[in-house]
Amino acid sequence: MFRATCNTRDFKKVINATSNLVDEICFEVDENGIKASAMDPSHVALVSMEMPKDVFEEYEGDVHDIGIDLEALKKIIARGKGDEKLILDLDAEKNKLNVTFKSNVTRKFSIALYDVSSSNLKVPDIEYPNNVSIKAGAFVEALKDAELVNDHITLKVDEDKFIIYSKGDLNQSETVFDNGVDDDDDTLAEFNMGEASRSTFNLAYLKDLTKSTAAEDLLKIYLGSDMPVKIEYEVSGSKLVFLLAPRIES
Amino acid sequence: MFRATCNTRDFKKVINATSNLVDEICFEVDENGIKASAMDPSHVALVSMEMPKDVFEEYEGDVHDIGIDLEALKKIIARGKGDEKLILDLDAEKNKLNVTFKSNVTRKFSIALYDVSSSNLKVPDIEYPNNVSIKAGAFVEALKDAELVNDHITLKVDEDKFIIYSKGDLNQSETVFDNGVDDDDDTLAEFNMGEASRSTFNLAYLKDLTKSTAAEDLLKIYLGSDMPVKIEYEVSGSKLVFLLAPRIES
Amino acid sequence: MFRATCNTRDFKKVINATSNLVDEICFEVDENGIKASAMDPSHVALVSMEMPKDVFEEYEGDVHDIGIDLEALKKIIARGKGDEKLILDLDAEKNKLNVTFKSNVTRKFSIALYDVSSSNLKVPDIEYPNNVSIKAGAFVEALKDAELVNDHITLKVDEDKFIIYSKGDLNQSETVFDNGVDDDDDTLAEFNMGEASRSTFNLAYLKDLTKSTAAEDLLKIYLGSDMPVKIEYEVSGSKLVFLLAPRIES
Repeated sequence: MFRATCNTRDFKKVINATSNLVDEICFEVDENGIKASAMDPSHVALVSMEMPKDVFEEYEGDVHDIGIDLEALKKIIARGKGDEKLILDLDAEKNKLNVTFKSNVTRKFSIALYDVSSSNLKVPDIEYPNNVSIKAGAFVEALKDAELVNDHITLKVDEDKFIIYSKGDLNQSETVFDNGVDDDDDTLAEFNMGEASRSTFNLAYLKDLTKSTAAEDLLKIYLGSDMPVKIEYEVSGSKLVFLLAPRIES
Repeated sequence: MFRATCNTRDFKKVINATSNLVDEICFEVDENGIKASAMDPSHVALVSMEMPKDVFEEYEGDVHDIGIDLEALKKIIARGKGDEKLILDLDAEKNKLNVTFKSNVTRKFSIALYDVSSSNLKVPDIEYPNNVSIKAGAFVEALKDAELVNDHITLKVDEDKFIIYSKGDLNQSETVFDNGVDDDDDTLAEFNMGEASRSTFNLAYLKDLTKSTAAEDLLKIYLGSDMPVKIEYEVSGSKLVFLLAPRIES
Repeated sequence: MFRATCNTRDFKKVINATSNLVDEICFEVDENGIKASAMDPSHVALVSMEMPKDVFEEYEGDVHDIGIDLEALKKIIARGKGDEKLILDLDAEKNKLNVTFKSNVTRKFSIALYDVSSSNLKVPDIEYPNNVSIKAGAFVEALKDAELVNDHITLKVDEDKFIIYSKGDLNQSETVFDNGVDDDDDTLAEFNMGEASRSTFNLAYLKDLTKSTAAEDLLKIYLGSDMPVKIEYEVSGSKLVFLLAPRIES
């Protein structure tokens, strides 16, 4: 038995964020909520999401592994309007997940389940020397700047500054978030530096990881030297965590 | 002699609706107004439009068959702004139709006429067991839902419900309009059922037929079992009728 | 030494207008401001821009020829928000132009300079029999009308009218701006006719020349028979001039 009711807008945001790097995933359902994690096909990024029971209006769940074609689910969820009620409902017998949108009409989709077993992946418990909290909008803009210049990007923490830069053969770009400068709109909300660090990442992955954020979402970014970057944010009580391996420069 | 003046917005809507399935058409003009009907190239759908004299601000028409390249006319009409005055004016000598937009500047197009004779097509006078009136917006949304699942769609009338569903190899979609449920915004405005029925149609055609509707347009849909579906609606006094042959399932 | 600070919005508009026909250009910088002119690769159109010192908030410039990859500069300028402060800053040693956007974060791009010497092109000093001043929006709409009909366009001045028309094999379009008709929104703001004239131009070039105009910009258009057309307009004190050779009809 698994049946959960929530707001279409929030579920859409969690599914979109999860599906940018991963095509299929196993929803690990139990009485506490839904968890899922997966690596992207090239094993460079890890995606993890957690929707605790209390983000749902109604929730009833026994232990189930529900194998989801994220591409199909994303397209179906995209059909829902933000203010429609969304009902997820496992039909274990037919091996289907029913997705129903309810407003004054009832629209119901059924998706065949994948035979995917739980990944048992956990986000590794790494100690990071540095972390910053930053508005997603400003971070995404810095990625777009870098895109004009090269296909990788360096995240650097140094002397009260969080710096995002990219260097191409001809041109270069650099965005500086200065913790020392008064920042009235709280773009850089937190800056915790243990030691100077820099790591370089594939830009396309970082863009995918942050594609479904809203400008005002607060990203918590954990950084070290030549370490994976960990990016966390919340969507109305649901938790998204991404880990991206660094690009080792030759 | 044929000369007619109207509002650009309304004429645009009628031409767009007519041209989604048909490339050329013969405007049958006389003192009562403009009529036209045509079948799509694969003879699956029939399109019929009627603009009576009184939807025009000014109208003067002798009997003429005016062969129109709908693709060209549509592009020209698209150049008009909604609040511009539109003047249609036959130049019988040069075999052209002049289309003039008038605001503080005058923009005039001339289109060469096609040598198309009147089709004499009439919408066949079929008796239908069922008909429903439904907001175009909700109907089009149901078609978009179905599109995720398969390229055909079934329209079903049964037990006080108008149901639109589609079934693919893996997934399915279903929209239920329930006449028994109070529907405060009148999405399902009328429901007249003589007998339970179901027919299946090519989804792409149904989408084309309804592509130029506005969300609030009220579609009158006539339905039976394995019968063509007839869809009627009005645009500020002009009448559009579409007939689409069913897909016979093997 | 060259360092100039201005509003991102205005600089973006000047660069966009300049780059529609030309890929690289030499900024001729001195104490009075920035000048640049270039011909398009097929030598049909000449583009000239002038940003005098006083359109900048701050300006310091010695004599420099700064060779710019306009495509790259345009993409970088596109990353700036209209209300950000834009700083141009020549790094003569590294042979780079730094472009910095300043709001509560600092984003800095560096572009490698081209080895382009000053073109010494001047807009030739032609005497024109006619000139009109017209809102860019209405002019661009007339070009779009013509585009439905053919790939060239005729600009005609005759009997108190400025006429833009195009004739294809089947269809034709014509926009008439009538100086004799009261035009409450000043679409045709000035009309100075010495003699009736007509010249035909390549439509794609005219569209590119006017692509970056805003609807309310006032274009000053100089016209004669089988003469190049000259189009001038201002963007907050900066001056843009375009010259386009006529298409000689056989």
